[in-house]
Amino acid sequence: MSETQIKSDNPSFVLYGIEDVKLENRPVPEIKDDQCLIAVSKTGICGSDVHYLLHGRIGDFVLEQPMCLGHESSGVVVKVGPDVKDDGRITVGSRVAMEPGVSCRTCTECKSGMYELCPHMAFAATPPTQFGTLCRYYVLPADVLHPIPESVSFEDGAMMEPLSVGVHSVHTLGQLKSDQVVIVFGAGPVGLLCMAVAKALGARRIIAVDIQQERLDFARSYAASDIFLPGPKDPNEKLEDYCARVSDEIRTTLNIPARDHGAVDLAIEASGAPTCIQMGINILKPAGTYVQVGMGRNMNVPLPLFHVINKQLKVLGSFRYGPGDYPLAISLVERGLIDLKPLVTHRFDFESAKEAFEVTKLGRDAAGKGVIKAIIDGPK
Amino acid sequence: MSETQIKSDNPSFVLYGIEDVKLENRPVPEIKDDQCLIAVSKTGICGSDVHYLLHGRIGDFVLEQPMCLGHESSGVVVKVGPDVKDDGRITVGSRVAMEPGVSCRTCTECKSGMYELCPHMAFAATPPTQFGTLCRYYVLPADVLHPIPESVSFEDGAMMEPLSVGVHSVHTLGQLKSDQVVIVFGAGPVGLLCMAVAKALGARRIIAVDIQQERLDFARSYAASDIFLPGPKDPNEKLEDYCARVSDEIRTTLNIPARDHGAVDLAIEASGAPTCIQMGINILKPAGTYVQVGMGRNMNVPLPLFHVINKQLKVLGSFRYGPGDYPLAISLVERGLIDLKPLVTHRFDFESAKEAFEVTKLGRDAAGKGVIKAIIDGPK
Amino acid sequence: MSETQIKSDNPSFVLYGIEDVKLENRPVPEIKDDQCLIAVSKTGICGSDVHYLLHGRIGDFVLEQPMCLGHESSGVVVKVGPDVKDDGRITVGSRVAMEPGVSCRTCTECKSGMYELCPHMAFAATPPTQFGTLCRYYVLPADVLHPIPESVSFEDGAMMEPLSVGVHSVHTLGQLKSDQVVIVFGAGPVGLLCMAVAKALGARRIIAVDIQQERLDFARSYAASDIFLPGPKDPNEKLEDYCARVSDEIRTTLNIPARDHGAVDLAIEASGAPTCIQMGINILKPAGTYVQVGMGRNMNVPLPLFHVINKQLKVLGSFRYGPGDYPLAISLVERGLIDLKPLVTHRFDFESAKEAFEVTKLGRDAAGKGVIKAIIDGPK
Amino acid sequence: MSETQIKSDNPSFVLYGIEDVKLENRPVPEIKDDQCLIAVSKTGICGSDVHYLLHGRIGDFVLEQPMCLGHESSGVVVKVGPDVKDDGRITVGSRVAMEPGVSCRTCTECKSGMYELCPHMAFAATPPTQFGTLCRYYVLPADVLHPIPESVSFEDGAMMEPLSVGVHSVHTLGQLKSDQVVIVFGAGPVGLLCMAVAKALGARRIIAVDIQQERLDFARSYAASDIFLPGPKDPNEKLEDYCARVSDEIRTTLNIPARDHGAVDLAIEASGAPTCIQMGINILKPAGTYVQVGMGRNMNVPLPLFHVINKQLKVLGSFRYGPGDYPLAISLVERGLIDLKPLVTHRFDFESAKEAFEVTKLGRDAAGKGVIKAIIDGPK
Repeated sequence: MSETQIKSDNPSFVLYGIEDVKLENRPVPEIKDDQCLIAVSKTGICGSDVHYLLHGRIGDFVLEQPMCLGHESSGVVVKVGPDVKDDGRITVGSRVAMEPGVSCRTCTECKSGMYELCPHMAFAATPPTQFGTLCRYYVLPADVLHPIPESVSFEDGAMMEPLSVGVHSVHTLGQLKSDQVVIVFGAGPVGLLCMAVAKALGARRIIAVDIQQERLDFARSYAASDIFLPGPKDPNEKLEDYCARVSDEIRTTLNIPARDHGAVDLAIEASGAPTCIQMGINILKPAGTYVQVGMGRNMNVPLPLFHVINKQLKVLGSFRYGPGDYPLAISLVERGLIDLKPLVTHRFDFESAKEAFEVTKLGRDAAGKGVIKAIIDGPK
Repeated sequence: MSETQIKSDNPSFVLYGIEDVKLENRPVPEIKDDQCLIAVSKTGICGSDVHYLLHGRIGDFVLEQPMCLGHESSGVVVKVGPDVKDDGRITVGSRVAMEPGVSCRTCTECKSGMYELCPHMAFAATPPTQFGTLCRYYVLPADVLHPIPESVSFEDGAMMEPLSVGVHSVHTLGQLKSDQVVIVFGAGPVGLLCMAVAKALGARRIIAVDIQQERLDFARSYAASDIFLPGPKDPNEKLEDYCARVSDEIRTTLNIPARDHGAVDLAIEASGAPTCIQMGINILKPAGTYVQVGMGRNMNVPLPLFHVINKQLKVLGSFRYGPGDYPLAISLVERGLIDLKPLVTHRFDFESAKEAFEVTKLGRDAAGKGVIKAIIDGPK
Repeated sequence: MSETQIKSDNPSFVLYGIEDVKLENRPVPEIKDDQCLIAVSKTGICGSDVHYLLHGRIGDFVLEQPMCLGHESSGVVVKVGPDVKDDGRITVGSRVAMEPGVSCRTCTECKSGMYELCPHMAFAATPPTQFGTLCRYYVLPADVLHPIPESVSFEDGAMMEPLSVGVHSVHTLGQLKSDQVVIVFGAGPVGLLCMAVAKALGARRIIAVDIQQERLDFARSYAASDIFLPGPKDPNEKLEDYCARVSDEIRTTLNIPARDHGAVDLAIEASGAPTCIQMGINILKPAGTYVQVGMGRNMNVPLPLFHVINKQLKVLGSFRYGPGDYPLAISLVERGLIDLKPLVTHRFDFESAKEAFEVTKLGRDAAGKGVIKAIIDGPK
Repeated sequence: MSETQIKSDNPSFVLYGIEDVKLENRPVPEIKDDQCLIAVSKTGICGSDVHYLLHGRIGDFVLEQPMCLGHESSGVVVKVGPDVKDDGRITVGSRVAMEPGVSCRTCTECKSGMYELCPHMAFAATPPTQFGTLCRYYVLPADVLHPIPESVSFEDGAMMEPLSVGVHSVHTLGQLKSDQVVIVFGAGPVGLLCMAVAKALGARRIIAVDIQQERLDFARSYAASDIFLPGPKDPNEKLEDYCARVSDEIRTTLNIPARDHGAVDLAIEASGAPTCIQMGINILKPAGTYVQVGMGRNMNVPLPLFHVINKQLKVLGSFRYGPGDYPLAISLVERGLIDLKPLVTHRFDFESAKEAFEVTKLGRDAAGKGVIKAIIDGPK
């Protein structure tokens, strides 16, 4: 076992209950023989972190013991267990993006290349675990540590987590190909990263739809080729008629054909809004693909199944990320095909972690600046 | 051009408007050089035929001129155009199942192996055409005529149309593999044929769900390994809670695991009922496939998208049939893997065609016997 | 940790060098926390076992320490480590087919659903391991133990190993579909099992090609629909001309079209013979699939690449078995779709293990009876 | 029917026999109702054109009547038949890349999305046709005419034919994905275009292998990230040992791992040389894909099948191009992802067409300059 100098404390940002967090010192964790200890460098804050802070649960995942928050992190390996493969991939000193989920490796899903669906998954900052990455030291097996080259910053490294969500949706499931046209609903962090992936993979057009002009303007400056702000629903208009009308307006305004070359091949729904779900199905060309990655408050919403039948669409759910997603995310950034820097709008010391949650929750800081991603430094 | 003796009249069963049909004589059609003339032998009646009779339209397809009904037919080739390939496949005298749609052959969909999505499709008994197969003579190009061997009856030949719908849903899109578990919602003709296909392809279990015990009993005698009749919704129960509860009851009652070997790999929704749509999504195992083939009155209904995301499901629409579906349907019958005879419950002379529509509409004949499929003889 | 009564000795059939085997007592192995101890019940002998006995190596796998032989086995679980999942799948007393390879679980191949390509694979009776299954007790993790129901005998359980090779070639890689036509070159154990899988999966025709009439006759009685014995090469005929001629003869004799329905969709090469390799490519229809599973003495042999180009063929190598192959193999036997009993032609006591190698090597016993599979009992 | 002013002569470059060509005037062809007349603007010369000139045949395609040469062309539509779809896609005046093959549209291959395998294909300058595109006027149906925007020159338009070969090999069959590593054997026109496609699709590395340093230097300046010139075979070295050695040298010299991220995912064989075929198989990573697109003199050459088995490779033949290939080729050029201009090294008047064949045959012009692609103007 090789290691570098390891401090004796492990400051951690721990959730005790709804809106009840404490900065406390936890023991430095022990590692098993096939694990590594990582000194966390940067951690991004995500909507789900805020959701646990505000509600103490997400769906069936309910906080039942104090849990350290944080799961979008990068760091430096400080200790390597003796059973970690001696192939030079991960050594003490490796700069790494930390994939936060550890699957069981032996279930049907793990063995057939879908570890994201492992029922035994242990995932940072997701009950029943008590561990998250908003701390000094975190433990992971080597295979979920992904080395990042010097040209990729630790902030970029932390951003590989949400970027992998985009890679999973657009590339792995959506199977976007060069020259295809993609529409992305929702210009928040996940939607923007989906657009970035689509651009990096050679999409012909990337159409962003959102209900905030400011977010659309950013999307256009970042990765979208076209943007669209839906007008309001008429008071007497049925929801489905409104959605069909807006879909037509998008196509007319942006000169998008209904089928054939130039039509919408892929719809990424990253907002979870019932209107966008309808619009995504409406606007797709025959045999097109729809990927649901956004999770809204109520996700049992009407879907126009007659279009799914008549256009013979493929509707896919996208859950986290799986084999190959982290490596492709890192490669796209390393090769300059995606620039993550414009997305990091706010930075905080570890001691100010709670403020990061605050601005993420509000989506805007005290000075009125919109928040895309807030990043927190590891403990000094 | 070779031909056999052709009669000079063409009795046809023509829809003039809502509930307004006439048995009239139309001219014997001319064929183009690459077409064939077929003497229709048997024609099955389908829900969509009845729907046109009752409503004069299906969705955007609106009757605007008198239209001959019928599209599930078999017959004998009586004339072959001079440009039909001289490969012995289709000659005068060939007994054929008649695929009722003719696509344009040059659009993107036709050229990429999805002719069922051709926007220029001309389909029997579907406006704006005025032609259907409930007549003596019908015209089609040779490639949509599928020879049937002597061992396959003309009734079977007519049934190849709905059977191809089942092949398309279960095999081509659903990609059912041996040992998989399939659940089929709706035990009407399409649902039953989907079960028959699943059985022929080696499904481990075929679970039929319907709201009529009589139909379930038939399903079990025909192709289902398991049946389930959902109990009623509690008055105060939300629809989605009811559906989740019934899904659990199906699994518990029939001892179906939630994941892994023996869990539900494929759900075929052939009823169009909002409850079944929910149940189909609920009961699927992670990474499972859901195929919507049934078309209900309102098809903009809630779908539990959180399951689609969390289980990373594939939701597919199934539209008619495409390359390879007719040939596989014929092969399954020819090889004795599917027996279509039990499904033909009622038979009519051409002159009594209207009665066939009547019993199909009611789903039950005057004597109280349930109708699965009514078949009409060609004109004598 | 639960366990049943375990004996204190571990009789083992150990290879010390070329043609140098000893029946010796080895210590009963210890298990790790996530492993199980299995009492071996039956072990089949395979060509590769014989090859190690005769040559001390297969390709780059060279015997460098004494190694217990055997890798086709079934048995009863007698001890279960405390970290084995407590899901009731594997418990003390479970009757199991033993998948003989243990992969690393963390490499790219393992994580992306191709564990058969894991570079760290530890495989029974394959150097550098010293362990094989021709002994009383063998250690494996629970996930490679596959429960077999009472209706499946231990002999069948042992045969799941070669049957999984067939499943991998025909189903997983060859993707055989109902109604397709398959040709199998070589009617030895692997070829016969490929035919059995093809039959179980609904192949339209299964054409067996071999150079021994006796083997062909067995193939026809077992799973082939058609058989063909190639005539001799003319002295002045070039190898490729001979192969092309025989391919044509097969098609003419058996009335197989060159393309379209009824043509050869899938060729399984299970002989490793240079002539068969050529014939397999020659006879396939356009866009057909060729799977190489047989390993001959010299496998750097001419392949008619112009056919691969002009017919746009898919040529695949098949290596062992991967995710889902064992479960499907068991299911096909359990459901009566494959009968393994006719393949077990010779049975031996553990003490007579060497005789099993002898008859397998010769392919014929002293009485002149052809050997398909010899099975050895576990130690009494 | 709409048309523009059409001249009354049709100068054509016609092959009468081996090395026997004439510039003669043929009648202006008539079009059928669903066809267009195109005034040819530019035509590229390809190895197969030269092959017909020198040998009067390619394989089974034997010249049996005078045949106009040329199949890589662009032009302007001058006449549109009355049955051509009135969708504005193709009108008189449309600038088009001319896909030179017309398939039957009704065979199994055409209907299932593989029209390149149509047995009834009529292909420009390929017997038994007497037509080629080295003339003033050529007839094609509208669906194989691909509009090119003003930004794409007619020379580029003519180059879409060989570029589509590259798209078919690298994208459609090879399924290259962003971040993958590709090796291309042969730096002639097809190899270079495969490299260009790989670069446009986001390959991580593109390794060119050729036996001429000059061609490698051009490849590096054009689209390759790495180049390799194999050293000579030792006199006593077996061919397969030489190929294995060179494969190792490529990996060592260019620092390419044998498996995992950065290893060779895709090998494109565009030389037809027996050594390169071996090397391509040798160097691929496990589960890699090999595409044979180059056609050498003898294509029945040894292939190391043990690697195909042990690494479970996919070996694919690539024939011409199919659905979607021309449109993607045009899009890649239109969007600036591929620059075809550097490849056009020589230009000729129609009257000097024979010189174009001469320099293409020699691969070098009188001044010693290497020929990549010679383009011939349409008749003035």
